[in-house]
Amino acid sequence: MEKTIRKFRKEDLPQILELIQELAHFEKEPDAVEIDVSILEKEGMGENPLFTCFIAELNNKIEGMALVYFRFSTWKGRTVHLEDLIIRKEMRGTGLGSALYKKVIEYALEQGVKRCEWVVLDWNTPAIDFYERSGATILKDWHLVQMDENAMKKYLNQF
Amino acid sequence: MEKTIRKFRKEDLPQILELIQELAHFEKEPDAVEIDVSILEKEGMGENPLFTCFIAELNNKIEGMALVYFRFSTWKGRTVHLEDLIIRKEMRGTGLGSALYKKVIEYALEQGVKRCEWVVLDWNTPAIDFYERSGATILKDWHLVQMDENAMKKYLNQF
Repeated sequence: MEKTIRKFRKEDLPQILELIQELAHFEKEPDAVEIDVSILEKEGMGENPLFTCFIAELNNKIEGMALVYFRFSTWKGRTVHLEDLIIRKEMRGTGLGSALYKKVIEYALEQGVKRCEWVVLDWNTPAIDFYERSGATILKDWHLVQMDENAMKKYLNQF
Repeated sequence: MEKTIRKFRKEDLPQILELIQELAHFEKEPDAVEIDVSILEKEGMGENPLFTCFIAELNNKIEGMALVYFRFSTWKGRTVHLEDLIIRKEMRGTGLGSALYKKVIEYALEQGVKRCEWVVLDWNTPAIDFYERSGATILKDWHLVQMDENAMKKYLNQF
């Protein structure tokens, strides 16, 4: 079985979208994906892409992906954020996930950042164990806060 | 008292750094700030800045700031992340924080994003209450995960 980890290309975008939809299903929010291939192309291609993506292939078939982008920490400076690392369900346990994870960390060091970061659902024990074994730190004293478009409009309407 | 909210300029950077250090102190990590003015300039100025910053002035004195940047959600597309909103301690309660918060939400809508997001420490009840009253959602089932430079190098060394 030939494993390949490589940067994404335009022709991968439909399969990247499929993998994103598969993860949404796993996270119990199957209808949450509001993006499409054109948004992936607009934001990930071109001169100033917002993100980049690594693809995991097994025998030339795309079986996983890791999507990353830069953030800016006012403590550490530029960091790499791992937004999603997805392996097709049937392919878990093949080492593709670890290969992608390694690639992301190599990329972060190549880019000279002081930190790589991501989030994990608190019930996803296998992932938490994997991250801790690899040397990552789980921060349990922060909450995520989100305001969607409707809430933003509603908030501004009161002024 | 004249309040002004405006975009940051190069000459504001030393005071932005001071505010960042003040927040680190409030969050009980006074030595955590590893960046300096040159990093703020490199990453926040120029053709493809990684972040932007809004400044709150009272009588022409800088008393607060909000630092934001774009992220990419594989569900929602481009989002605005609010990294820090800081008001000088003596100036809390003057409405400067609310004015900056409003500016960030205006900016997010202007930029056409579907979501604005940030994090909050779980013991910071006044902030959590303020965010909830404003219509934001607190997500309590995620953990942050971080791997710093040393941990990344150590992880890769095993291969």
